[in-house]
Amino acid sequence: MDLLVQKFGGSSLASPARIHAVADLVAQAARTNRVVVVVSAMGDTTDDLIVLARSVTEHPPAREIDMLLATGEQVSASLLSMALHQRGRDAISLTGWQAGIRTSSTFRAARIRDIRPDRIRRELEQGRVVIVTGFQGVVGDGEWDEVTTLGRGGSDATAVALAASLGCLCRIYTDVEGIYSADPRLAPGARRLPTVTYEEMLELAQYGARVMMPRSVELAQIWRVPLEVTSSFTPGAGTSIGGSMEFANRIAGVAHQMDVAKVTLVALMDRPGVAAAVFRALATRHVHADLIVQNIGHEGRTDLSFTVAADDLDIALETIAAVRDEVGARDVTARTGLAKVSVVGSGLFSSLDHAATMFSALSELGVNIDIISTSGIRITCVIDGGHVEEAVRAVHAAFGLEGEDRWQSTA
Amino acid sequence: MDLLVQKFGGSSLASPARIHAVADLVAQAARTNRVVVVVSAMGDTTDDLIVLARSVTEHPPAREIDMLLATGEQVSASLLSMALHQRGRDAISLTGWQAGIRTSSTFRAARIRDIRPDRIRRELEQGRVVIVTGFQGVVGDGEWDEVTTLGRGGSDATAVALAASLGCLCRIYTDVEGIYSADPRLAPGARRLPTVTYEEMLELAQYGARVMMPRSVELAQIWRVPLEVTSSFTPGAGTSIGGSMEFANRIAGVAHQMDVAKVTLVALMDRPGVAAAVFRALATRHVHADLIVQNIGHEGRTDLSFTVAADDLDIALETIAAVRDEVGARDVTARTGLAKVSVVGSGLFSSLDHAATMFSALSELGVNIDIISTSGIRITCVIDGGHVEEAVRAVHAAFGLEGEDRWQSTA
Repeated sequence: MDLLVQKFGGSSLASPARIHAVADLVAQAARTNRVVVVVSAMGDTTDDLIVLARSVTEHPPAREIDMLLATGEQVSASLLSMALHQRGRDAISLTGWQAGIRTSSTFRAARIRDIRPDRIRRELEQGRVVIVTGFQGVVGDGEWDEVTTLGRGGSDATAVALAASLGCLCRIYTDVEGIYSADPRLAPGARRLPTVTYEEMLELAQYGARVMMPRSVELAQIWRVPLEVTSSFTPGAGTSIGGSMEFANRIAGVAHQMDVAKVTLVALMDRPGVAAAVFRALATRHVHADLIVQNIGHEGRTDLSFTVAADDLDIALETIAAVRDEVGARDVTARTGLAKVSVVGSGLFSSLDHAATMFSALSELGVNIDIISTSGIRITCVIDGGHVEEAVRAVHAAFGLEGEDRWQSTA
Repeated sequence: MDLLVQKFGGSSLASPARIHAVADLVAQAARTNRVVVVVSAMGDTTDDLIVLARSVTEHPPAREIDMLLATGEQVSASLLSMALHQRGRDAISLTGWQAGIRTSSTFRAARIRDIRPDRIRRELEQGRVVIVTGFQGVVGDGEWDEVTTLGRGGSDATAVALAASLGCLCRIYTDVEGIYSADPRLAPGARRLPTVTYEEMLELAQYGARVMMPRSVELAQIWRVPLEVTSSFTPGAGTSIGGSMEFANRIAGVAHQMDVAKVTLVALMDRPGVAAAVFRALATRHVHADLIVQNIGHEGRTDLSFTVAADDLDIALETIAAVRDEVGARDVTARTGLAKVSVVGSGLFSSLDHAATMFSALSELGVNIDIISTSGIRITCVIDGGHVEEAVRAVHAAFGLEGEDRWQSTA
């Protein structure tokens, strides 16, 4: 029997009834596979626990937050095991430390270092479904072990790392039916993609597709773990994410991100070390600046712009103010209410026409492009947030992503 | 600095506000002691988790119940640690496995086998308050560790075992101010006892005083752990429980138990093995039969009576019906609505007058005694439950337990 890692998120486990629905999916898979299940905490448990901690103290130590949060997955894992036992299916829930998930020592944002799956293998050999608490691990030497949590997207990361360690498929169950060629709420013609490459998924995830965090896609890519994203509510269809290069000529889809802010340092001194000083300062404050663009300088001065999430703008401006004299900027400007629209696909690499297609689609709408940024398989335009919906639809149509499901034939 | 184990029950930790009140008590103790704190789950968390498990399946496996319940203390331990950090007091929460609490392998009712307090000692040496999750431990060889819970009274047992292992005082914080000479709700003249012996506490606990479970008192007695019982709501006064024999001549107090049922096997065959057959059958069904009395037999027949908790009566009668032919009982009768009133004190050992004092007090009330049972330091009468309040008051008065606090002088 093949081995399979299934991962269920919080919304899939939000109530005893939902846990039973998940148990049905697991029991079904366990008829033809040996199954390891990774679970998130039920519903909004993690957020609720953080609110509880904040009601005790405004600045709870990260180490104790991890002790607190780790209970969430322990609850859902044990309940899912009970639901499987009720179906006559032998199952066992394991915490991060029982499952041998060893991490780095950064509380609240630990990284998985390695997995020692001996216990998991032994339980599987006994014919048990093994349910592992996602989002958590342990760091230490056995004499001084600490519980850690993995931060945002941690349960997906647990599932991918387990699949890598066990050498098997990882199926992520979520509340959507897979990866779409655009957000179906914005572009009614959007279609489910039966397959995407790791590279495409990574770009889609980084530029707005919320189904998976870039971190887990990256992990899957590095370890060549075959991924599937499917719905726990309406199982069946889904999207396979893998390393195939069969789709070299295609455009996968359109991603978008709202609530983007832009910061520009005006007439900055154009000399080595200036940009480094700016972004080192931002990194120290944990501000993630992306889409960095710098114009060609003249008279020893240049403009430097970058985007940040709107929530991070205040802290970004504060940080820039502190280094402004050092980098010799004449002015600092900010603009909010922006959005990113990106087109992603392995096929973008092969032709320069694609950029023109995108810019034309936007200009036909009369939408001004604030920043342009590209990677080998992605073109991103920063535009006014008020136009995002029509922009996504127009770009989606311009690349011919509507119409019949042309991905089926290559799946 | 002396070492001290403090234990706080669920009602003392029922809300963030209560957790802060407990943090004040801990921080205060930590000024003059190195402190290990044992916590129960917040408020009714344990019961709520059991209800949650039952909403998933009627018969959850004990192993998974333990995984589930163990989260309760992990939550309260981490929150208490946060509250201490807010006070500038370094603290760390440890789960059962981190604290080295090794147990037997009976899920839901594990016993503490041994404690490896290396980690606790190291944390104490770093100047930290160490907060240990009560009620839970771990069993296994490191490669195959399982989380266990200790059953009713498990957090007290954790605290006593830790104090034994560390060689220090164990202070149990509860919602009453200590051990009383009778239940103050029944006997308004009841007085707090500054000191009781282990033996007295054990009898009081077994015969109705609810402050501590007999199990933890027994553990303290075996390991000679000095205990204190005090209130977390109005700290200060309390009761010391220890091994002193200074109180050889005193009567400690009156305990009572409601909802007692009596079963009588009438005209049973008076031959060896009959009583054994009856109580083995009851033990198999986990029915705790106490106060077993057998009258002198005549004509090869005898009557055998015992008491059980009213809740256990149905299962007791069912069990007896199954062995009735084997033991040759002519009839089986049952009576409910009974109560036990017990007087406890090391001084009972020294004089036969005490039994007479008790029986007189009851007969003056016109209360009939159904069963009498004694130990070296306890006399128990089973009476009609409707008379329990006046009986407790009368016995309490008959032994002179009201009036000035005569225990202070011997404390």
